[in-house]
Amino acid sequence: MRNFTYYTPTEVIFGRNAEEQTAALIKKYGGRKILVHYGGGSVKRSGLLDRICTQLTNEGIEYILLGGVVPNPRLSLVHEGIELCRREGIDLILAVGGGSAMDSAKAIAYGTPYEGDVWDFFCGKAKPATALPVGVVVTNPATGSEMSDSCVITNEADKDKRGYSSPLGRCRFAISNPELTFTLPPYQTAAGVADIMMHTMERYFSNDMDMALTEALAEALLRTMKENAYKVLANPTDYTARTQIMWGGSLAHNGLTECGMLRDWANHKMEHELSGMFDVTHGAGLTALWPTWARYVYKSNIQRFVRFAVNVMGVPADPANPEAVALKGIEAMESFYKDIKMPVNLPELLGRPVTEAEIAELARRCSHDGTITVGNLRVLTQEDIAAIYRLANQ
Amino acid sequence: MRNFTYYTPTEVIFGRNAEEQTAALIKKYGGRKILVHYGGGSVKRSGLLDRICTQLTNEGIEYILLGGVVPNPRLSLVHEGIELCRREGIDLILAVGGGSAMDSAKAIAYGTPYEGDVWDFFCGKAKPATALPVGVVVTNPATGSEMSDSCVITNEADKDKRGYSSPLGRCRFAISNPELTFTLPPYQTAAGVADIMMHTMERYFSNDMDMALTEALAEALLRTMKENAYKVLANPTDYTARTQIMWGGSLAHNGLTECGMLRDWANHKMEHELSGMFDVTHGAGLTALWPTWARYVYKSNIQRFVRFAVNVMGVPADPANPEAVALKGIEAMESFYKDIKMPVNLPELLGRPVTEAEIAELARRCSHDGTITVGNLRVLTQEDIAAIYRLANQ
Repeated sequence: MRNFTYYTPTEVIFGRNAEEQTAALIKKYGGRKILVHYGGGSVKRSGLLDRICTQLTNEGIEYILLGGVVPNPRLSLVHEGIELCRREGIDLILAVGGGSAMDSAKAIAYGTPYEGDVWDFFCGKAKPATALPVGVVVTNPATGSEMSDSCVITNEADKDKRGYSSPLGRCRFAISNPELTFTLPPYQTAAGVADIMMHTMERYFSNDMDMALTEALAEALLRTMKENAYKVLANPTDYTARTQIMWGGSLAHNGLTECGMLRDWANHKMEHELSGMFDVTHGAGLTALWPTWARYVYKSNIQRFVRFAVNVMGVPADPANPEAVALKGIEAMESFYKDIKMPVNLPELLGRPVTEAEIAELARRCSHDGTITVGNLRVLTQEDIAAIYRLANQ
Repeated sequence: MRNFTYYTPTEVIFGRNAEEQTAALIKKYGGRKILVHYGGGSVKRSGLLDRICTQLTNEGIEYILLGGVVPNPRLSLVHEGIELCRREGIDLILAVGGGSAMDSAKAIAYGTPYEGDVWDFFCGKAKPATALPVGVVVTNPATGSEMSDSCVITNEADKDKRGYSSPLGRCRFAISNPELTFTLPPYQTAAGVADIMMHTMERYFSNDMDMALTEALAEALLRTMKENAYKVLANPTDYTARTQIMWGGSLAHNGLTECGMLRDWANHKMEHELSGMFDVTHGAGLTALWPTWARYVYKSNIQRFVRFAVNVMGVPADPANPEAVALKGIEAMESFYKDIKMPVNLPELLGRPVTEAEIAELARRCSHDGTITVGNLRVLTQEDIAAIYRLANQ
């Protein structure tokens, strides 16, 4: 069993009308003049942004608005946010939205007190010594950024999407009201579920097989997400089902499902290249790769895939035929992706096959010009990565 | 689904040699002159206390020692610790031990900055405005105090055992090395497992049936504890199995297994009266009551007991006979308690039956002279409580 650190200090306020506590939490965590960071239409159309601003005004909290965050949030807006925070003397950032707003807020929080370029952290050139406090009002459960230590930013100038993780990236508070997710379109809902499940699958598909509690918790979470995905797609205002997905999104990526185990993370790294190059929805990029990845790597740890098949996907156990069970589990997951109308290969994701030149470029970027490998269950070289993109292209 | 707050800020350092990080964590959380609080023989005999003290000296951290914590930790020692902390200007308390040392440390942390008597908090007469920071080196996984918000103290003058819970009672850090639990005797190991499981069972046995994720996580945890209980009792130095129990102890009581659900807590409240009056081991007091409690209340929510039977205890599902399944689940749990050599009634716990006068006194205290009820799955009056003690006496 691997040693681990578990540190999830975020105060989560969960349930109906939770957003009414926003101003109180801002004050609790020291916010006097804050940046409210958000995306585009939905938080305005829904009236959520207005309600929060009214609350801030009523409670005497000064605020500056910075909207315009887009999916695969961009470095240029992060730079703009950093300038704004410095100029205005901002002491807390409140993100209102999904993963993009939250991740952009985290990057601004890292960059504001740092003298250099915040992109340094994403390139591994520097580590932040401090960060502004961040709080979030979550409207899209997917990235788990509300409890995770990570954020992912796209440097749009060179289509480079990179993540950075640090304990300083943990939000001070997260406000999650499942009712705010009722209006999510089916595609966003399904992509969110895919991302949530993948956050735990990236941890579960490990060669470490001796952490029974973590494995059992991961399986419980994955089963619950799968069951409730069908429910929320059938009935978008099913509060109980939305609750499971939203809380699952927080737990899937807060570290709980990795304790004692070495993570894999290959699918995310390969997907980040797709998002960087083609600006696709992250969750959809993940499902377009996973079945191919799984069939490419399963022989490296058949027992892990057997356990997934039986304990998560409900495939009947058959100890005499482990490989058949493992493959049935992958097939069942692929069927689930199809059921929730997520793509299961690259042509379905992009509307066309990728070219050989694009495959080469994706693999080159993902492997940092062949200087790094990705994944741990099976270590993938530049050639392996290219092979997976190519197999996913069929 | 009930609204909830989830707040578990404790930094957990888990694994082999984790205790070597003690001084670093004390410094991280601002400790310059600390109180080291512990029990009796085992942390001295094992050399753990010496190793920690050497580390503190080497790292230039001043410390004062206060040992002598006993199971069902006592208010008189808490008072002594408070005086010591005030006199010496202590800025952090380090507990080295099990639940008793941790809980005693928390109580000292509450009491030091408070002008009145710390017992006020346990009686509901006052709420702490602040508390000294507490860190722990865990040697006995049972109470979950390392991540929980609660602590339980016995006012030995009138045999009154009471708990107090507050976000201020969350430890800053917890150091958990399963190797430190290898020397726990079988009885303490089994009582610890019983307590761990009960922390989650007190939450799981709820009439709220709409929080699928929390339920599934609770079931996963309970199954894992049960399986690994047999392993650690068969082989006390099984590191992997000790790991599951130790990490399970932290998660069972940190709030994870109650999110969205109303807790019951009747067994703990009835057991506290037993511990207060007879100074028994808490986990053993719990197992002596639970089968009787379960049979007394199960008709209030047969479906919950069915789910427990099938998903935790492995009883075959039989939708046509829910009551039979529910009862088989209770029976299976009782058998598990017997397997791990825990008592399943009061005569087994105490070596003699309790008297009618004692039953009346236990029920009087537990119900605060009939002014409060306990439990939620079934609300228990003073008469119900007496009936359960009486049935557990046979």
